[in-house]
Amino acid sequence: MAVRVDLNISLDGFATTTDQTPESPFGEDWPRLVGAYAATRTFRERVFKDTSGAGTTGLDDHYARAYFAGIGAEIMGAGMFGLHNFPDDPDWQGWWGDEPPFHYPVFVLTHRRRGSIEMADGTSFHFIETSIEDALERATAVANGKDVRIGGGPSVARAYLKAGLVDQLHVAIAPILLGQGIRLWDELRGFEAGYTVTSETAESGTIHLTYKR
Amino acid sequence: MAVRVDLNISLDGFATTTDQTPESPFGEDWPRLVGAYAATRTFRERVFKDTSGAGTTGLDDHYARAYFAGIGAEIMGAGMFGLHNFPDDPDWQGWWGDEPPFHYPVFVLTHRRRGSIEMADGTSFHFIETSIEDALERATAVANGKDVRIGGGPSVARAYLKAGLVDQLHVAIAPILLGQGIRLWDELRGFEAGYTVTSETAESGTIHLTYKR
Repeated sequence: MAVRVDLNISLDGFATTTDQTPESPFGEDWPRLVGAYAATRTFRERVFKDTSGAGTTGLDDHYARAYFAGIGAEIMGAGMFGLHNFPDDPDWQGWWGDEPPFHYPVFVLTHRRRGSIEMADGTSFHFIETSIEDALERATAVANGKDVRIGGGPSVARAYLKAGLVDQLHVAIAPILLGQGIRLWDELRGFEAGYTVTSETAESGTIHLTYKR
Repeated sequence: MAVRVDLNISLDGFATTTDQTPESPFGEDWPRLVGAYAATRTFRERVFKDTSGAGTTGLDDHYARAYFAGIGAEIMGAGMFGLHNFPDDPDWQGWWGDEPPFHYPVFVLTHRRRGSIEMADGTSFHFIETSIEDALERATAVANGKDVRIGGGPSVARAYLKAGLVDQLHVAIAPILLGQGIRLWDELRGFEAGYTVTSETAESGTIHLTYKR
């Protein structure tokens, strides 16, 4: 059982985009940051429910498969679930739609009390107000010996990285400069100690870098 | 003729180290940041005057050879030359010793008036107080049709990158997190537009990333 983080970042270390507008709700930067990942066959199958077999099958897809493999539970921040977007709507069930790609329990860190949500396909969302350590204990307890993923956003991921709780960090680095957003790397001086690092470049130009304990 | 920048940076984008002490004048971070480059056969020959043939000969050495090839003039900041370190010593001739590795004219951007220094092996240092554009014109004029390198430090390099004056940027990214120092990437949002990017990973773990116009 390992604790894993897996994020898309820009070359200048930003894991979020900032150019959302009403006309372009994800922003123009979003496809540039995650486009290579979203273009993979695995992502299209798992997230878009596209079973046509379309999508890239190279190194990016290799990492996309690894992203979804072997995870038994996940922890994410309130923003990644979507709680910040419609905070006054108690029926809002987040960004992930009727068929979330997780198929395991997801713990959402939030100060807002909400009942759990059980989906048909094995995904459940549990809203908890607790420390990152306790959240990890709870996720580990229900992961059936599989890995626990810290899904994001970058502030939550960084908190776990900083606390030394992460066994494997994979970043897919898009060779673009966003110049603004939330930095993944802040306050992580010396993080690499105790990890083995590997990297390789995909056909898309994405650099896949992995720190493994 | 192209304008080139070639820098060693950490994964979190720092091109300088900050942990210098009297006991460790380069700091412990320095060999971690530039060690793979300094270990190459080319660097050892060119900078350390080690003609024994020792040093690595893989991908890092390929980039080290490219670093020195085809340059006809260079521009650097006062800090890279060494002016900040002994500002009151008019005889201080910088970090580069009696046999600097350049073998071409080097323009040092500074507000301090100093006479030029001519070395025996083709290297000359010229101290100029001017705009980055004018410095580039002057360097281009004496480069004999060869490339002009913006040597650094990172603030000078970033000024040229930001002004759109650079045709080729190569960064050797060490997979370490320094957490502090001077960031290369600040205020470069969208820099990649108009460039083709390539990247590959050396045996040392260094990621070589090149933006080329």
